[in-house]
Amino acid sequence: MKLLQERILKDGNVKSGNVLKVDSFLNHQMDIELFNEIGKEFKRIFADYNINKILTIEASGIGIACITAQYFNSPVVFAKKAQSINIDGAVYSTKIESFTHKKTYDVIVSKKFLNPEDRVLIIDDFLANGCALAGLIELVRSAGATVEGIGIVVEKGFQNGGELIRSMGVRLESLAIVDAMNADDGSITFRN
Amino acid sequence: MKLLQERILKDGNVKSGNVLKVDSFLNHQMDIELFNEIGKEFKRIFADYNINKILTIEASGIGIACITAQYFNSPVVFAKKAQSINIDGAVYSTKIESFTHKKTYDVIVSKKFLNPEDRVLIIDDFLANGCALAGLIELVRSAGATVEGIGIVVEKGFQNGGELIRSMGVRLESLAIVDAMNADDGSITFRN
Repeated sequence: MKLLQERILKDGNVKSGNVLKVDSFLNHQMDIELFNEIGKEFKRIFADYNINKILTIEASGIGIACITAQYFNSPVVFAKKAQSINIDGAVYSTKIESFTHKKTYDVIVSKKFLNPEDRVLIIDDFLANGCALAGLIELVRSAGATVEGIGIVVEKGFQNGGELIRSMGVRLESLAIVDAMNADDGSITFRN
Repeated sequence: MKLLQERILKDGNVKSGNVLKVDSFLNHQMDIELFNEIGKEFKRIFADYNINKILTIEASGIGIACITAQYFNSPVVFAKKAQSINIDGAVYSTKIESFTHKKTYDVIVSKKFLNPEDRVLIIDDFLANGCALAGLIELVRSAGATVEGIGIVVEKGFQNGGELIRSMGVRLESLAIVDAMNADDGSITFRN
């Protein structure tokens, strides 16, 4: 997605430790006009899949998922990190290791909100090692629901998450795939 | 907001401990069509305030804030709970005690995303004891920015948060104010 790549080149920052900061428009401050273009693109890609539910994970996936959901006329469910007293005991759960925070979370979705007839589009902002996505796929499949596709905004193509998820037989589409980046000169190379 | 009150009566559940579960449409599964009606109502209320930024807090405020932002043509910034390696040292921070989770969080916003010229609308799903809102107001004022108003979806009118925040001289508008609820018979009484 050309608009997104241009924005990453303009406002993204490469930091040491393979960190790509896009917090001025994607995951801390959020450019809602850009999110609408992202949502339209996901709809274009997944138009034929009869998606009836969008699943994401808190926190930074939620905004993109909600804007995207407008193009599918579907509700959004977000998976929650760690148990809350507001969640009933009846949950699907899995463990996810966060690349960003270097720790392991319990991630849950109430059983009320994933059902066998659901045709789910999973949306998230980043794909790195694929742990979060693998966990979300597991939650959907635990419910007997179908993962129709996965829409990612930025994939780090030099990490193994994309390969891992595509090997699970799921259609994964990333709007920008970063194949290389360099903290010294700030350069970013996208996959064509 | 009549549509919201009707939805709370239809799909909300009163649990012991003053918990109102609205997780089927507001803060776990999210009804984006309802969110659009909420966003329009916030725009109607705050149309004259020249809002240029919406601030919320992760996680359950993000979806409502993003949909609402479409009516203000503004970006959204969400305050983050606890330090992440992706956040620069340059942050505004405060401590917030969560009613839901019974613990205290450090809450931060990057200094890049709150500036003295910002006219901020704060959006959140729930208002109970007001700690989260007081923290967000403090973050905005730390930046020298202006809180033009606060839009809440559900206020628990029998807790003291509404009084606390209104006494700070901020315009606070809640789309539904619950004055009483009863876990035994499931009844919910709204303020007129």
